[in-house]
Amino acid sequence: MLDTISIRTSGPGLYEITDRISVLLPRQDGLLTALVRHTSCSLLIQENADPDVQVDLRRYFERLVPRGDTPDMAWLTHVMEGPDDMPAHIKAAMLPVSLGIPVAAGRMMLGTWQGIYLFEHRERPHTREIALHFRGD
Amino acid sequence: MLDTISIRTSGPGLYEITDRISVLLPRQDGLLTALVRHTSCSLLIQENADPDVQVDLRRYFERLVPRGDTPDMAWLTHVMEGPDDMPAHIKAAMLPVSLGIPVAAGRMMLGTWQGIYLFEHRERPHTREIALHFRGD
Amino acid sequence: MLDTISIRTSGPGLYEITDRISVLLPRQDGLLTALVRHTSCSLLIQENADPDVQVDLRRYFERLVPRGDTPDMAWLTHVMEGPDDMPAHIKAAMLPVSLGIPVAAGRMMLGTWQGIYLFEHRERPHTREIALHFRGD
Repeated sequence: MLDTISIRTSGPGLYEITDRISVLLPRQDGLLTALVRHTSCSLLIQENADPDVQVDLRRYFERLVPRGDTPDMAWLTHVMEGPDDMPAHIKAAMLPVSLGIPVAAGRMMLGTWQGIYLFEHRERPHTREIALHFRGD
Repeated sequence: MLDTISIRTSGPGLYEITDRISVLLPRQDGLLTALVRHTSCSLLIQENADPDVQVDLRRYFERLVPRGDTPDMAWLTHVMEGPDDMPAHIKAAMLPVSLGIPVAAGRMMLGTWQGIYLFEHRERPHTREIALHFRGD
Repeated sequence: MLDTISIRTSGPGLYEITDRISVLLPRQDGLLTALVRHTSCSLLIQENADPDVQVDLRRYFERLVPRGDTPDMAWLTHVMEGPDDMPAHIKAAMLPVSLGIPVAAGRMMLGTWQGIYLFEHRERPHTREIALHFRGD
């Protein structure tokens, strides 16, 4: 199975997509692979219990890779597309672009607290596409 | 093939699991996928020659993502589960949660110096589960 | 399909390998998996439009993980193999070692601006191997 899902984002942060993916899986064992088709957002498997975790994750990476108009990042050369663009590419390099997830009888073998997220790094709204592949055993 | 292995950890650091996975593979070409079912530890492929590499890796990430009770991390909001909890989630976001490894005649196509590790980020002992999927060609 | 490609590198930076991989794919749907067989370089999917992005990526990671002979990294213990060795292992832990890419009719489902790169972290020339697995649906 090959498929694509679209996610509309409105600024930096985590957007949960676990259920969007779950419903596409046949009741079979196999392997799911997801690939985000962009270079300024990421895929993440993270805790889906306490929403504070998601806020802290976003803030940590904003501190680690500050905007291009801050003194720490004055050395950047790729700045034409705005002060959030090159930092978004850096975060996209550092965080996952693809995920492989074993599937048992149509259910992803995620842990109890694991959810799948699109992690948006750009400030303006975007429509993001994720390519999905599932192959039954 | 779907399987799960458990690893008991006793504090932060790398625990090698290469052999635990190797013995499960049939003598076939195919693809192995591993997924760690937690949000506060990681999977890593790293050098298995000099143990100093593993010590330095642990220390680097402890410095990059300090404990929640240090001044650098005073901005964290998710602190209920202890000063090592949110930093563990951050490291788990930054380091791999899943790995895809081509297999030739039952042997993972790792390089000479590559081993597979569970990287524990929490301080207290944990039992960690890794979901494995192998599909022969 | 199992295959291996070799890339000669001459110092830190991104080396595009998208076409080296594309030409190996049969005209089929399926899944491609790539694994870099080393612990001091990485695989990256990144923007292939503006070359400044690649320069900034290299510089960012050089600043985040400085050479072992700088004051920031004086705590390193694994230094025998040169001041660029342990920082290369750290970058290799932080950036992808394997990628899973859905394939539709023989074409990788990459986004318009995505290219696949080997990211070399060592200073001296190296020959790097990438193991590839493709399985048609």
